[in-house]
Amino acid sequence: MNRRSFLGLTGASVASLAAAKDASAADRQNRPNFILVFADDLGYGDLSCYGHPTIRTPNLDRMAQEGMRLTSFYAAASVCSPSRAGLLTGRYPVRCGQPGNLGPGSTGGLPLSEVILPAALKPLGYRTMAIGKWHLGHTPDYVPTARGFDSFYGLPYSNDMIPPWVKTDRPLHLYRDTESIESPVQQETLTERYTEEAVKFIRRSRGSRFFLYLPHSMPHLPVSTSRRFRGRSRAGLYGDVIETLDWSMGRILATLKQEHLDRRTMVIFTSDNGPWLNLPARMLQQGNERWHAGSKGLLRGHKGNTYEGGLRVPGIVRWPGRIPPGQISEDIAATMDLYTTIVQAAGADLPADRTLDGKDLMPFLAGKAPSPRQEFYYFRGSNLEAVREGKWKLRLSRSMRDDLEKDDPLTPELFDLDFDPAEQYNLADREPDLVARLENKLREFAAELSAKVVEPR
Amino acid sequence: MNRRSFLGLTGASVASLAAAKDASAADRQNRPNFILVFADDLGYGDLSCYGHPTIRTPNLDRMAQEGMRLTSFYAAASVCSPSRAGLLTGRYPVRCGQPGNLGPGSTGGLPLSEVILPAALKPLGYRTMAIGKWHLGHTPDYVPTARGFDSFYGLPYSNDMIPPWVKTDRPLHLYRDTESIESPVQQETLTERYTEEAVKFIRRSRGSRFFLYLPHSMPHLPVSTSRRFRGRSRAGLYGDVIETLDWSMGRILATLKQEHLDRRTMVIFTSDNGPWLNLPARMLQQGNERWHAGSKGLLRGHKGNTYEGGLRVPGIVRWPGRIPPGQISEDIAATMDLYTTIVQAAGADLPADRTLDGKDLMPFLAGKAPSPRQEFYYFRGSNLEAVREGKWKLRLSRSMRDDLEKDDPLTPELFDLDFDPAEQYNLADREPDLVARLENKLREFAAELSAKVVEPR
Repeated sequence: MNRRSFLGLTGASVASLAAAKDASAADRQNRPNFILVFADDLGYGDLSCYGHPTIRTPNLDRMAQEGMRLTSFYAAASVCSPSRAGLLTGRYPVRCGQPGNLGPGSTGGLPLSEVILPAALKPLGYRTMAIGKWHLGHTPDYVPTARGFDSFYGLPYSNDMIPPWVKTDRPLHLYRDTESIESPVQQETLTERYTEEAVKFIRRSRGSRFFLYLPHSMPHLPVSTSRRFRGRSRAGLYGDVIETLDWSMGRILATLKQEHLDRRTMVIFTSDNGPWLNLPARMLQQGNERWHAGSKGLLRGHKGNTYEGGLRVPGIVRWPGRIPPGQISEDIAATMDLYTTIVQAAGADLPADRTLDGKDLMPFLAGKAPSPRQEFYYFRGSNLEAVREGKWKLRLSRSMRDDLEKDDPLTPELFDLDFDPAEQYNLADREPDLVARLENKLREFAAELSAKVVEPR
Repeated sequence: MNRRSFLGLTGASVASLAAAKDASAADRQNRPNFILVFADDLGYGDLSCYGHPTIRTPNLDRMAQEGMRLTSFYAAASVCSPSRAGLLTGRYPVRCGQPGNLGPGSTGGLPLSEVILPAALKPLGYRTMAIGKWHLGHTPDYVPTARGFDSFYGLPYSNDMIPPWVKTDRPLHLYRDTESIESPVQQETLTERYTEEAVKFIRRSRGSRFFLYLPHSMPHLPVSTSRRFRGRSRAGLYGDVIETLDWSMGRILATLKQEHLDRRTMVIFTSDNGPWLNLPARMLQQGNERWHAGSKGLLRGHKGNTYEGGLRVPGIVRWPGRIPPGQISEDIAATMDLYTTIVQAAGADLPADRTLDGKDLMPFLAGKAPSPRQEFYYFRGSNLEAVREGKWKLRLSRSMRDDLEKDDPLTPELFDLDFDPAEQYNLADREPDLVARLENKLREFAAELSAKVVEPR
C-alpha cells in the first residue's frame, strides 16, 4: 500500500492520485462500507458473549459468532476524549496531542493537524456521518462537520456534563450538524434516536460507499433508556441500557440485510474504556447509583487506571465473506488499529508525514495471519504507566488517586496476562531481567513521545 | 411421578413395582443414558463460553450451544466431599450427613442410609460406572462398588492427599473396582485414562441403559497433563489441564455420536466448587504455584467460602431432541437438582422416606417452564452462612479464615445478584425488612437441619 500525505500534496502526487482513481474504478466496487459502533464506559464483562450472567445481548452474541470476537482488544486510553482521539487518528493520544479529557469549558480539541478517519476516506467518495457523543472539541473548528464528517447528530461531549454532576453554566445541547435542536436533552430516548438516524443514513447512502461512526452516549452515567426498554433486563436499569444498545446493533444489522449491504459492510462494536467503578462522590446524586456501572468481568481495575479493566474492552468485528465466522482470538489488537485497517480496506492512503501507531488487522481478521500487534502501551493522561509485550505486562505506578484497590502496590508489577488475565500474581521478583528490559522499553517509548513515566518509589 | 421408598418396600409396593415394570416395557425404550462429568475445583470463569480470554474450550462451548448453559448454577458445597454428597443424594450435605471433607485417614464416609444416584437407577436395569475421584469414603462399606456402581476406576480421594501436601502415611492408589492397580499414581495421564475408560464403558453399554459418573481429578492441585497436551494452551499449565478436560468432553461426545446414542443420552458438565485461590502455604511446594488455580470470572470469593465464587460453577446440559439448543438461562439451579432430574427422567422412583432438596429440572431444561428452584442455601461445613431467594442473597459471616478478602465485612451483606453478580454493593442498610425476613428464613432452615447460623457481630 502506497503511503502519501494528505496535507502536502504536490502537483505530481495530485496527478498520480488522479491516475490511481481511474485505474481503480472497478476496484472501487469492492470497497466496503464501515460502521463503527463505540459504546461509552461499557465494560469488558458487560455482554453475554463475554460472560455476563444476567445481561442478554443476543444480537451482539450473534454478530460475534458471524465474525471475530477479540479477547485482548484495547482502547487507546482509559477515559473518553483520548480514547476517541486514538481511535480516529490511529495514534496514541499523547502522540496526537489529546492525552486528557475535554469539558464543557474547553475551547480547544483534537489538534487540527490530525487527519481523522472520515477525512482520510472522503477523497475516495465516502459519505461520512457521526452519530452520538463527539468529545473532541465543540468550538467551531473542532466539531465533527469541520473534521471530515458530512453530517452529525449528537452531543458535543458526555451526557453528565451538566449540573449537578459537573460545574458548568453551559447547557447541554443535542445538535444536528452545527445547529442545536434540543436543550435540555431528553436522554431517555437518545439511543433509539441515534439508531433511527443510523438506519436513515444507511438507507440514503446505499448507492455510494459510507462510513458511519456511532459513538453511543450510553452506558455513561446518567444511564437511561425509554419506557419500552425499562425492566426488560434482569440486571436492572444498567442492564436495560446495555440491552437497548444490543437492540440498536440488531436494528442496524437488520437494516444492512434489508439493503443487501451485509457482505459489503465491515461492522465493528467496541467501547471507549472500562466501566466507571470509581465514581466520585459528586456523581452519586440525582438518581445515579454506584451500580449504574458496568462489569470488568474477570479483569482488575476500571475506567481511569491502567490495569486491564481500564482499557481492555469487548471487540467484535463482522464482515461476511471477508472475515470467517466463529473466530475467537486472544491476539493483541487496539482501537488505533481500526484506523489503519479501515483506511487500507477502503483503498485510501495512510498519511506518510507522521507516525501511525495503528496496524492493518485485515489479514488477521481474515484468519490468514496472527495479529500484527505485539505490544501495547497503557497511558494515564500524559503518563505512560505500563507496557504489554506478548503475554507480559509491566506496570509502574505510584498513584493511588481514583483507585479502588486498597493494596495498590508501589513497586513494579509484572503480570503474565495469558495465564493471569486478572492481574493477581505479580511476578516482578521472579523475573528481574524481564522487568529491567520492559522498563527500559517503557522509558524509550516515553522519550519518543515526550511522555512521562511514573516512577516506582 | 410416584414417590416410593427404596429401603422399606412392603409386599404391596413390591407388587405394584412389578406391575409398573410390565406396563413400562415400551416406555423403557425411551429412558435416556446419563453422563455426569464433574470437574474438580474448576472455576466459574474457566471456560471460553463463560468468558475466559485465553483458555479455549471449543467442545464445551459447542456442547453449550447444543443445549443449555446455566449462569446461576450452584454446587451443593464449596469443598469436595460435601459437594459430591449433595450431587449424589439430592440433599444438602448437612442433611445427608456429609458436611465436611474426608481425608486419607477417614474411616467413615457418606452415611450408608443414603440412596445415591446409581443405587436409585439400578432397579431399572441401568449399568453404572464411576470413573475418577470418589471422596465419599474409602473403607470397604463406602467405596463406589458398595454404593451402587457396577464398576469403578479412579482415586479414592483428592490427588493432593499425599506428602508433602498432606500429612499421611497412606500412599495414594489408583483402583479398578476395589483393587489397587497403581501406586504411586501417574497423575499426568489420569484425564486421558479416565476418558478411555469412559469411552470403553459407553461402547460396552450401548445395548442397555447406562449411568456414567465421571468426576475428574483435575484441575485440582497438583495440576498435570500429558506431554501431548502441555503447551497446547496459551494459559500455561492450568490452561493445558482445562483444555485436556475439553478434549475429554469432545472425545466422549464423539463416541456418543459414533454409537448413535446422541439423542438417547443426557450429558452434564459441571464442577464441584469454585477455584482454589486461597491456597494454604503447605500447598505451595513441589511444583505447585499460586496460579495453578482457576478463574472465578466476575464473581467474588473462591473455593471454601460462601461468596458466589465458592459455589457458583459452570453448568452445561445437553440432550438433543429433548433440550432445545442455544439456551442460556440465569435461573437458579443446583447440582442437587440433577439427582431428582436424572431419577425422574429415568423413570425411577424418588425415595419417599426422606426429604429431598433437589427439584426436577426437566421442564425447565426442555424450555417449557422456568426453573423450579427459587432459593438456594450456602453452607460452609456445618454452618449455614447465606441464602439466595430469587435475585436476593443474604450472607452472614464473621469468619475471616481462609479468606482473601481483606475487607470481609462483619455485618450482614445483602446483594442483588441480578445486577450485582460480583457482590460489590451491600444493600443491607437500604433494605432492613428484607434482611430481617431473609435472616429469619436462614434461621428456620438451619433449625430444620440442626445446622448453625454464623452470627453477625
